[in-house]
Amino acid sequence: MSEITIIPGGVCAAQGYQAHAIECGVKDPKNPRLDMGLIYSPTETTSAAAFTTNQVCAAPVKLSKAHLAEANFRAFLVNSGNANACTGEQGLTDAQTHTAQLAEELGLQPNQIAVCSTGVIGLPLPAERMSAQLPALASGLHASTAQADLFAKAIMTSDTRQKEIAVEVELGGKKVRIGGCSKGAGMIKPSMATMLCFLTTDAAIPKDLLQEAVIEATNASFNRISVDGDMSTNDTVLLMANGLSGAEVTDLESDEGVVFRSALTYVMDYLAKAIVLDGEKVTKFVTVHVLNARTEEDAQHVAEAVANSPLVKSSWNGDDPNWGRVIHAVGYAKAHIQEDLIDILWEDQLACEGGKLGPAHISKLREIASKDAFELIIDLKLGEASYKMYTSDLSPEYVDYNRSEYSYWKAVERNQG
Amino acid sequence: MSEITIIPGGVCAAQGYQAHAIECGVKDPKNPRLDMGLIYSPTETTSAAAFTTNQVCAAPVKLSKAHLAEANFRAFLVNSGNANACTGEQGLTDAQTHTAQLAEELGLQPNQIAVCSTGVIGLPLPAERMSAQLPALASGLHASTAQADLFAKAIMTSDTRQKEIAVEVELGGKKVRIGGCSKGAGMIKPSMATMLCFLTTDAAIPKDLLQEAVIEATNASFNRISVDGDMSTNDTVLLMANGLSGAEVTDLESDEGVVFRSALTYVMDYLAKAIVLDGEKVTKFVTVHVLNARTEEDAQHVAEAVANSPLVKSSWNGDDPNWGRVIHAVGYAKAHIQEDLIDILWEDQLACEGGKLGPAHISKLREIASKDAFELIIDLKLGEASYKMYTSDLSPEYVDYNRSEYSYWKAVERNQG
Repeated sequence: MSEITIIPGGVCAAQGYQAHAIECGVKDPKNPRLDMGLIYSPTETTSAAAFTTNQVCAAPVKLSKAHLAEANFRAFLVNSGNANACTGEQGLTDAQTHTAQLAEELGLQPNQIAVCSTGVIGLPLPAERMSAQLPALASGLHASTAQADLFAKAIMTSDTRQKEIAVEVELGGKKVRIGGCSKGAGMIKPSMATMLCFLTTDAAIPKDLLQEAVIEATNASFNRISVDGDMSTNDTVLLMANGLSGAEVTDLESDEGVVFRSALTYVMDYLAKAIVLDGEKVTKFVTVHVLNARTEEDAQHVAEAVANSPLVKSSWNGDDPNWGRVIHAVGYAKAHIQEDLIDILWEDQLACEGGKLGPAHISKLREIASKDAFELIIDLKLGEASYKMYTSDLSPEYVDYNRSEYSYWKAVERNQG
Repeated sequence: MSEITIIPGGVCAAQGYQAHAIECGVKDPKNPRLDMGLIYSPTETTSAAAFTTNQVCAAPVKLSKAHLAEANFRAFLVNSGNANACTGEQGLTDAQTHTAQLAEELGLQPNQIAVCSTGVIGLPLPAERMSAQLPALASGLHASTAQADLFAKAIMTSDTRQKEIAVEVELGGKKVRIGGCSKGAGMIKPSMATMLCFLTTDAAIPKDLLQEAVIEATNASFNRISVDGDMSTNDTVLLMANGLSGAEVTDLESDEGVVFRSALTYVMDYLAKAIVLDGEKVTKFVTVHVLNARTEEDAQHVAEAVANSPLVKSSWNGDDPNWGRVIHAVGYAKAHIQEDLIDILWEDQLACEGGKLGPAHISKLREIASKDAFELIIDLKLGEASYKMYTSDLSPEYVDYNRSEYSYWKAVERNQG
């Protein structure tokens, strides 16, 4: 298999993509920060996406879904500071106005533009202020690592750092690049944040295969992370493929298809882990690995029950290798289990054996539980299916941080007068 | 309908019940506290119960379930400080030994005794120490308010106060009493706690009808409370009915049946709310009321999604009337919803109307969100079903409190040497 090499350049690493970002005053008109960004492909692409399954979903999600059904994207437009969610007809109209205006600027059809928003829920977009800045955003587009960085910074809300990566692989003797950036502090602050991921590649790949590859990689990455089990109204993954590398994928099972899929999964896995590592007030990165379940669905349910239990997550914060809390969460998962078969390990240390206190010595368990990152293994011993998830602890500081959104209420007050 | 009068006496309020509790050293042998309790009926009863649905369930739960299938209870034996869960064959043997020994003391069959444990998971019971104290426990039995209080205190773990109530109603001209006590700091600390509820009545009612009434009242009370969505391995509700009042229920739909059911629900509702109010580090009591769902199941799923969301609960802790977080949890509930119909109210204040920012002024919303107790109403406007739940905020202090169980690890260290 072709080696995956990490390279600089983010969303501009692949040939032919341009980016730009500006300070538009969506986050705070009096104290402008980067909050509007654009990625553009001057040439034709095939495109794919994955969207939130939350039934309450934002206007830009609805519009981008409709556009992808009709066309392929040539541009991704994003703003941070306002989610344009729970904004009714006006929200949809605003998103349509912006895509129509940008389409004119770039010589595209409106349905060739995907639009994303992240930030507070339930307040109207400062749509006119944004319209006024769109020409400047479009005219500043060019291709460079610095521009990709600018874009990655513009999508941040409660994120403490930008998250980007690019890789290079060989497909049939030709170098192909995949670049991406993501934002999100763990899908955990839906009024202020969202998980977004923007990807570009210079491979050529038909739309249906690209879509299949994106769903596969999303299931292996973003769908396996959890900070608090809350799912946002705006979560979106977007990918454009322009074919400029000259390398083509015509079959996902071919050598080229396998290399492309593994590179895409590598990029998205990196960007998903980066979200957990940047989770709000997170102190631990925990990999929950469920082994030997009867079905993969069972393994997933067990992993999710453990990864989402406030009690389990609190104990991780306290360096406490508390297998009793883990097994109680396993017990209420919607999965087939047998209590007296279950082993629970902190890495190689058997804390619970056959549903009872295991032989591991506490001092060793505590040593592992005190690390910044560790693996928790739950062996159900009922079958051969497994499932892995990336998650974090729950800290008193997380709750404190999320007690009140003063910035939101300040914005509502401005709106209500 | 007969009036429900609150009376003193707890589990000894109904005629013919005796109770006792002692310091046995289960919690801490060096610093004895009340940790073993007994309720006894000298006369025949009919009995009913509700048990945890967690697939990992404690030895006493397994044994009590089996006993109820064969017989009616004459005694409830309970210890606090050790859950006898995840203790394998030895745990079951210990529970059997204690019921057999107590049966001999009281002149009963072992299957006439229900046994409950609450406390740490995964450590063997100090079974011999408990056996040694059983004769003293049995010989101290008598009927009084003071004895009922002693029992209610002996079942506490992380509870900060005892929870008991008794009521009197008239059934066909005869006075009937139902008394009970519960423990639990919100089903939220499964290694140290559990939800337990012990009930006695002097009504006469056939076993099958009593079981039906207990399930109905459990669904209307204990199944509607949530502190953090975690479900314990030991949760148990137990009820004995000895018929000494001379009043009889032969049909749940008769006048007597309706009065008995409403009195039982009243008692269990009180004891369930008392658990939320005593929830670990809880500062708010929130009633989540979902209205006009298509089905009751839909209403329940929406209420549970909201009541269990860490983000929603964090905002309650911060006096933040954050409807954006509420609607995002509604959106991921497994229920039929339509975003542009949803209203969300803090009591009478319309925070969200038709899925968008509503007319309520923030100052009024904040005033309600700052109270110790308030009602949150979610009106789905899709049907006629509703569901009500009692829940609490999530505080930084809760996470801090649950970071590590030093008492557990001290106990494991003693066990491992």
